[in-house]
Amino acid sequence: MKTLNQLAKTPADLTKNLTPDRLEKLKAEALGMKLLYGTERVTEEVMDALWQMAQEKKVLHHMEKMQKGEIVNTIAGVPCENRPALHTAMRDLFSQAPRAAEATQLARQEIEKLKKFYPRFTHFTDLVQIGIGGSSLGPQAICLGLEAFHKPGKRVHFISNVDPDETTKIFKALDLKKTVVVVVSKSGSTLETVTNEARARQLFESVGLPSKDHVIAVTGKGSPMDDPQKYLSSFYIWDYIGGRYSVTSMVGAVMLAFVLGIDALMEFLQGAHEMDTIALSSDPAKNLPLISALLGVWNRNYLNLPTVAIIPYSQALSRFPAHLQQLDMESNGKRIDKSGKAVDFETGPIIWGEPGTNGQHSFFQLIHQGTTVVPLEIVAFKETQYGEDLEVQGTTSQEKLLANLFAQSIALAQGEKSDNPNKFFPGNRPNRILLARRLDPFTIGALLAYYEHKVVFQGFLWNINSFDQEGVQLGKTLASKIINLFKKQGNFPLGEAYLKQL
Amino acid sequence: MKTLNQLAKTPADLTKNLTPDRLEKLKAEALGMKLLYGTERVTEEVMDALWQMAQEKKVLHHMEKMQKGEIVNTIAGVPCENRPALHTAMRDLFSQAPRAAEATQLARQEIEKLKKFYPRFTHFTDLVQIGIGGSSLGPQAICLGLEAFHKPGKRVHFISNVDPDETTKIFKALDLKKTVVVVVSKSGSTLETVTNEARARQLFESVGLPSKDHVIAVTGKGSPMDDPQKYLSSFYIWDYIGGRYSVTSMVGAVMLAFVLGIDALMEFLQGAHEMDTIALSSDPAKNLPLISALLGVWNRNYLNLPTVAIIPYSQALSRFPAHLQQLDMESNGKRIDKSGKAVDFETGPIIWGEPGTNGQHSFFQLIHQGTTVVPLEIVAFKETQYGEDLEVQGTTSQEKLLANLFAQSIALAQGEKSDNPNKFFPGNRPNRILLARRLDPFTIGALLAYYEHKVVFQGFLWNINSFDQEGVQLGKTLASKIINLFKKQGNFPLGEAYLKQL
Repeated sequence: MKTLNQLAKTPADLTKNLTPDRLEKLKAEALGMKLLYGTERVTEEVMDALWQMAQEKKVLHHMEKMQKGEIVNTIAGVPCENRPALHTAMRDLFSQAPRAAEATQLARQEIEKLKKFYPRFTHFTDLVQIGIGGSSLGPQAICLGLEAFHKPGKRVHFISNVDPDETTKIFKALDLKKTVVVVVSKSGSTLETVTNEARARQLFESVGLPSKDHVIAVTGKGSPMDDPQKYLSSFYIWDYIGGRYSVTSMVGAVMLAFVLGIDALMEFLQGAHEMDTIALSSDPAKNLPLISALLGVWNRNYLNLPTVAIIPYSQALSRFPAHLQQLDMESNGKRIDKSGKAVDFETGPIIWGEPGTNGQHSFFQLIHQGTTVVPLEIVAFKETQYGEDLEVQGTTSQEKLLANLFAQSIALAQGEKSDNPNKFFPGNRPNRILLARRLDPFTIGALLAYYEHKVVFQGFLWNINSFDQEGVQLGKTLASKIINLFKKQGNFPLGEAYLKQL
Repeated sequence: MKTLNQLAKTPADLTKNLTPDRLEKLKAEALGMKLLYGTERVTEEVMDALWQMAQEKKVLHHMEKMQKGEIVNTIAGVPCENRPALHTAMRDLFSQAPRAAEATQLARQEIEKLKKFYPRFTHFTDLVQIGIGGSSLGPQAICLGLEAFHKPGKRVHFISNVDPDETTKIFKALDLKKTVVVVVSKSGSTLETVTNEARARQLFESVGLPSKDHVIAVTGKGSPMDDPQKYLSSFYIWDYIGGRYSVTSMVGAVMLAFVLGIDALMEFLQGAHEMDTIALSSDPAKNLPLISALLGVWNRNYLNLPTVAIIPYSQALSRFPAHLQQLDMESNGKRIDKSGKAVDFETGPIIWGEPGTNGQHSFFQLIHQGTTVVPLEIVAFKETQYGEDLEVQGTTSQEKLLANLFAQSIALAQGEKSDNPNKFFPGNRPNRILLARRLDPFTIGALLAYYEHKVVFQGFLWNINSFDQEGVQLGKTLASKIINLFKKQGNFPLGEAYLKQL
């Protein structure tokens, strides 16, 4: 059997070999979702070799260990977080035998608390979620993705940035009497979140409303925010829930219950849970996230492509790429492996993207004819969310949308020869399509978990720790030093040089 | 004098040589904006060599030719658009002697028409701009960037995507009696735009409102949309205004007049115009866009960095990176030069980004410790837009925001040694800061033009045509074929293979 390195010398030439047969054969399918990858630069031989690599690296075994609660967030011989990563336990609510029983039991308690609290949401029309990073990006992506399913009269807003104008703008437009704030911080001490909570409380108090009646906490037990005197209610998360993996914990659930109701929240969690089960499957025709991860490694390490563009052909998923940026780049943007040694290969790529068809009228020029090849992950749905559409010139908008994404997939792969050098398309731009029936609560849950597991599988394949984020610490330390300079304290010449420019 | 290739073998080592002196010295300044680039991997010797390259390639001469209306959108010996690029003429309204008098005269007529039309906006509370690519991304970035300056009771919405759910969602929330739609398409035949206009008209008619009274056209003279019978009013653009360069034409101006008023619109145009003048300056301490372009070429072609992250430390600029994606990647994502030959170097990089501090809690892990180096362009403002803030723990939010961006700039450049390999920061991550006083109409105009000229200068340096976009054609052709399959017409086996998957 040829090695992957040998195979990578002659990757599939899609300008010559793209056939209907290929498009029908190279796919995986589960939960009504199809991963169509005939437009990736692979052959069946390459897929076999990738699958064998997955077996050699025991990634299914690691996935099972993760879901059972063994310690996966660790690096040998280095002081580190050294703990499990149990986001899957947050949604393992639908079977008699959860894989990590203790964590699921705790999650279930919070869900029950939320159900009991739920009637109290009737007083409120607007919910403001204050939180940053994982406490904002994933929840926002799901909230927007399901806007078609929002309860009438319920609106959600997100404040992350310490930029004061954002908080000013959002609160200006609200009726504070009918507004509830959910403050999310596991540590209870995130600079941006603490600051924005203080501003929100001041705004309530300034119009004579006791802020305690309007602020809910989502935090770790024992954090500075775990204080029933100060909050209308408190919901818990645990140290084994990483921010970027926290959407299905109370970080996302409180807000989603408010805007979607409990039933839709449970469908969302069930979608995620069912994808967790798919991620354990040893069938390459079924394990969507693992196949996608293998293609990711092929593109990154064998075809040497530095970025990945996520293109959802659904405007509702407009913020999904921003969530995936954090999920993927914070998880796999690492330079040492799990034995603490610097890696000698490329790890996580740069993730970016915008919805199609919009992107086609923007950066697709570079994707078709630029000098850097960009692999695409297209996400698509057969049906609309609202069920409203209009036939114009013989087709509906939904048909035009689907026609466009299929056309792009083929055009990028196949390219086109032309004597006019400006109309020459080199082709061999790899892309794959994840095709689902309709963007509903169940499906978006499955989609979320699909990407969580894809990222984690790539981490397992690279033998890196996808669950910590030491790289954010240095900036925090230096920011404190400059904050001190603003307070006329401390000594930091480089910071002072910058402050002089103001 | 050493060549750039020689100098690139030993780029400035910022882990050793980052000093307060460097931060103060390496900068350019104009219109109250400072470009601080002491954290780029350059020396004064490199800057001199880059400046000399700019002179050899006569880029200031080309910029002057462009602004005067000579043909710059052309490729020798190839059938092509062969025309000027006259976006600068749209705002050359503030001097006695405009650089391209005829184009400015036409632009002035449209502005006068808009001023005359302006009182009729009083009937409307909501404006929906229907347009895609440049007819949406730039206008939306500016509209959101200036939300603090919006007239009370005026709201703007954007519909681009052919995704039917987007149109459904946006119109659901509107009072159609008080809604005006601006349809923007130079050709008058863009698939998405024509389709969404048809849906909008149907919605008006379905509630008994004549759609003619609610729809304004922005289009090219003689296009299928240039039909006074069908529109409340029509505003014109010309073939020498490329979509991605069109924000300061009627493409952006009609909507901005509605939401900001005429005075603020004129300030915005003036900001852009004054930056156009700066772009002609032969003083390296002043010509901000040229310095930035030279640094861009250094990072792309000499340090071999495939992407650029745009990080505005201002939530109001949340959609500015999406505009720059189109502006830069559609302009410079090219594989042939202006003589029609395939280039043997890298052209336009991949542009992406999100606001700070948000990004710090997301993908900055990869930027600090990943295996692919990402140069950053930070955009920052000294003052808030609303003038509202709160001191928490001794500093305001605005001070915390500034502290963070300066800290990131230093941390990325300098890195940090550590015996713990997970706390080791390699540093030498190039970044620059564009620092302005306050994000207001004038400044955002200058910022817009700064990036337009940066992109164009990079195109001049690479000798590529930054004004066409042939790369979007193949996808359009194949999409028509698949649209035909939906209509049971034509024959396209690859398309049929995909439709079978639905």
